[in-house]
Amino acid sequence: MPLLGLLPRRAWASLLTQLLRPPCASCTGAVRCQSQVAEAVLTSQLKAHQEKPNFIIKTPKGTRDLSPQHMVVREKILDLVISCFKRHGAKGMDTPAFELKETLTEKYGEDSGLMYDLKDQGGELLSLRYDLTVPFARYLAMNKVKKMKRYHVGKVWRRESPTIVQGRYREFCQCDFDIAGQFDPMIPDAECLKIMCEILSGLQLGDFLIKVNDRRIVDGMFAVCGVPESKFRAICSSIDKLDKMAWKDVRHEMVVKKGLAPEVADRIGDYVQCHGGVSLVEQMFQDPRLSQNKQALEGLGDLKLLFEYLTLFGIADKISFDLSLARGLDYYTGVIYEAVLLQTPTQAGEEPLNVGSVAAGGRYDGLVGMFDPKGHKVPCVGLSIGVERIFYIVEQRMKTKGEKVRTTETQVFVATPQKNFLQERLKLIAELWDSGIKAEMLYKNNPKLLTQLHYCESTGIPLVVIIGEQELKEGVIKIRSVASREEVAIKRENFVAEIQKRLSES
Amino acid sequence: MPLLGLLPRRAWASLLTQLLRPPCASCTGAVRCQSQVAEAVLTSQLKAHQEKPNFIIKTPKGTRDLSPQHMVVREKILDLVISCFKRHGAKGMDTPAFELKETLTEKYGEDSGLMYDLKDQGGELLSLRYDLTVPFARYLAMNKVKKMKRYHVGKVWRRESPTIVQGRYREFCQCDFDIAGQFDPMIPDAECLKIMCEILSGLQLGDFLIKVNDRRIVDGMFAVCGVPESKFRAICSSIDKLDKMAWKDVRHEMVVKKGLAPEVADRIGDYVQCHGGVSLVEQMFQDPRLSQNKQALEGLGDLKLLFEYLTLFGIADKISFDLSLARGLDYYTGVIYEAVLLQTPTQAGEEPLNVGSVAAGGRYDGLVGMFDPKGHKVPCVGLSIGVERIFYIVEQRMKTKGEKVRTTETQVFVATPQKNFLQERLKLIAELWDSGIKAEMLYKNNPKLLTQLHYCESTGIPLVVIIGEQELKEGVIKIRSVASREEVAIKRENFVAEIQKRLSES
Repeated sequence: MPLLGLLPRRAWASLLTQLLRPPCASCTGAVRCQSQVAEAVLTSQLKAHQEKPNFIIKTPKGTRDLSPQHMVVREKILDLVISCFKRHGAKGMDTPAFELKETLTEKYGEDSGLMYDLKDQGGELLSLRYDLTVPFARYLAMNKVKKMKRYHVGKVWRRESPTIVQGRYREFCQCDFDIAGQFDPMIPDAECLKIMCEILSGLQLGDFLIKVNDRRIVDGMFAVCGVPESKFRAICSSIDKLDKMAWKDVRHEMVVKKGLAPEVADRIGDYVQCHGGVSLVEQMFQDPRLSQNKQALEGLGDLKLLFEYLTLFGIADKISFDLSLARGLDYYTGVIYEAVLLQTPTQAGEEPLNVGSVAAGGRYDGLVGMFDPKGHKVPCVGLSIGVERIFYIVEQRMKTKGEKVRTTETQVFVATPQKNFLQERLKLIAELWDSGIKAEMLYKNNPKLLTQLHYCESTGIPLVVIIGEQELKEGVIKIRSVASREEVAIKRENFVAEIQKRLSES
Repeated sequence: MPLLGLLPRRAWASLLTQLLRPPCASCTGAVRCQSQVAEAVLTSQLKAHQEKPNFIIKTPKGTRDLSPQHMVVREKILDLVISCFKRHGAKGMDTPAFELKETLTEKYGEDSGLMYDLKDQGGELLSLRYDLTVPFARYLAMNKVKKMKRYHVGKVWRRESPTIVQGRYREFCQCDFDIAGQFDPMIPDAECLKIMCEILSGLQLGDFLIKVNDRRIVDGMFAVCGVPESKFRAICSSIDKLDKMAWKDVRHEMVVKKGLAPEVADRIGDYVQCHGGVSLVEQMFQDPRLSQNKQALEGLGDLKLLFEYLTLFGIADKISFDLSLARGLDYYTGVIYEAVLLQTPTQAGEEPLNVGSVAAGGRYDGLVGMFDPKGHKVPCVGLSIGVERIFYIVEQRMKTKGEKVRTTETQVFVATPQKNFLQERLKLIAELWDSGIKAEMLYKNNPKLLTQLHYCESTGIPLVVIIGEQELKEGVIKIRSVASREEVAIKRENFVAEIQKRLSES
């Protein structure tokens, strides 16, 4: 009697009433009829659910299920991203979905969404991870790893209000690549940008641009413009909104909400309009104010070197030095970057896509040291591919084009035109599976041939093997191409080899 | 001044003291020295961490990081498992890490570990998923899906006390395959057992056996032995411990803890010792007591049919009808099964492995109906591969054999014997990456040749391309095999093609 122990108390009365019915005809008297009991239990459970009027079947707010259609698109994109990470020598890694709450606090800055905390069920205070970078830094410090190139693909959770139309959810996937270790300047940083280019080109999302800046230049700019040091991070997070908000709105936020003097805001306004190639770096070296700031000069020096390497990598034309780039997260200490798509792939009738950045990252030399009891630093630089946005773009594009994806990979279907051929079908399909061939059949004793062929057409299975009375008598199997409807008879003992041959040719 | 906004208040005093130091020589006076500020901030943060004496860097209790070594083993095993699922026509799917708490309650039974609840931060009450089966049933009911063959690989969380030596953690990976839908009896059930055989054979874990039983036979056995219906699930969960506990201890639990009459326990004891092939099914049909129970007869009828299909699949010798198999979870309603390894791969000096079951599953025809407002049922049957235990076994075996795994897939290393060849190396490695070749180099301006070659040997990179003064002058690149130490010079313009040729040959 399944689930009896779990019944809510109020369901018991109804269950007992039904159990008190006289036993049915097939009961032995001594032993109570099990069907009847089982039925009574199910009815009671149903009652129990109906007695909870507030119970709605849904996924939690801001989350969703990923259907087979979603999964196919994801798998393709993640495969491409992960191959690129592996091409650059990265190792895989994973960390738990949750961390000690203390590990995650004071790492993300003012504009970060809320963390999901776990309930205190006795024991440690825990939170779901908010990104993959802080767990990576914790891992390096905890294991005293001084050097590592790793990638990490995993879910993260942020309690933001979900704007579902833009493909933003409270649960989402991140794909990170990071290089930890003390190396000669800008070589790993340049590789990170190379990786972003390879992935964005490989995904064929259209033209893109990677904006580059340096936190030391941002801070230097703030300093020479007269921003009080206590307001650096707050103003930084305002500047970070420039890709979504007009300058005048950002200026308003800085002056009215964050109490910045208007003339200071205007000085910043002059800088953040600047963007260009390596020549802008040279120009900023000559800037009367910025050139007086030691930190800014360090940042500019590094950017100059970075552009040299990017030229050798053949990707300098994809990179723009952009003084409006600030990045929201607090932990960056050096070069920062963010990739944006230049032409959103809109077509007639399609909503224009506003997807924001599709990849971003930067240098964070202080984060690992925050976890080390002695403050030992491990410089890091890395990037995160905005795969959720990319999934969304690709799905939208497929929808527009009316493209359909197969959600299974089945190569062969085992069919019969006659009744009583289940045994033969089971033997044939086992042979196919044992030979590594992807095969399906209908779970029916006597399916109709038309139903079977329709199944192949609707799910995109290319080949059918058919066994019936005639084939059995002649010791053959018919192989049918679903596309051409051509059929050939092959000796029973050769049919697997013949199918393998056809599959390798296609 | 990174992170300033986030400083704990008590760190401010120390920060201010340092900021009040006179500006350093490189400061302009008007603009405060940024290095000095940054340094002060970091020192303060360090102080802040030191002021939290209880802060330990660790992963939460019962969880762990997965190192690159773990990941390589996992990737191989998961690839094999997922290919098998795809070979049988399954679609991929994913559900959120957490569900409404109500979705998960009253599904798992008395011996289930605790659920991880999320903190009530305003909004819905949520829990981390406990398995992948209940979310699947919720998905089917929510989307009114009546038929689906899907696989799902994902993390689940259970607040059990971790027994780490047996590879059990509070966070672990599950790999599930399920067939939902109304079909002719036992065809999907037989396929589930076929899949378990294919995976366990494919993983080469040694000989294995799959125990099979049916919940209706278990319940029928309880009924004819005289177990009160109210104790069915409680006694079922005691029986489930028979693979870890001796009969006399299980009997003691049933009699003393669960209040079963000793003679009833002894009657059960007679049954649970029975195991065998299809002949035992026939024997039980003749059993004077069991044959009087309608439910048991239904179960026996289905098992007979199942064995017929298993024989056609060629796997009947791997299957044992075992009356002691009960399965802990409450939602099973029909056939149940569990795979155990027969020979644990122990060698001299290795601890004997007690890994329990490595795969299990069964039929659960009532679960989807529990979510449907009208109680519409969708019959389901499925299996779960105990991948964590399999990971553990494979890792232990590799440790015993002293096997090492490469954690990267890098094929080519770009080296130089001379100084000032960074630019050439960057150009060469970009060409390799752009041709899809997995390549690495050291992030140093002037690395020593020996260091570079050592890196290749220690990480298992098979090929090195070398560029130096002589090669540059002659317009060639040297290709070196790390294993044989042989070197050949190839024209600069042909080196990528030559490497591709060598890689395709190996």
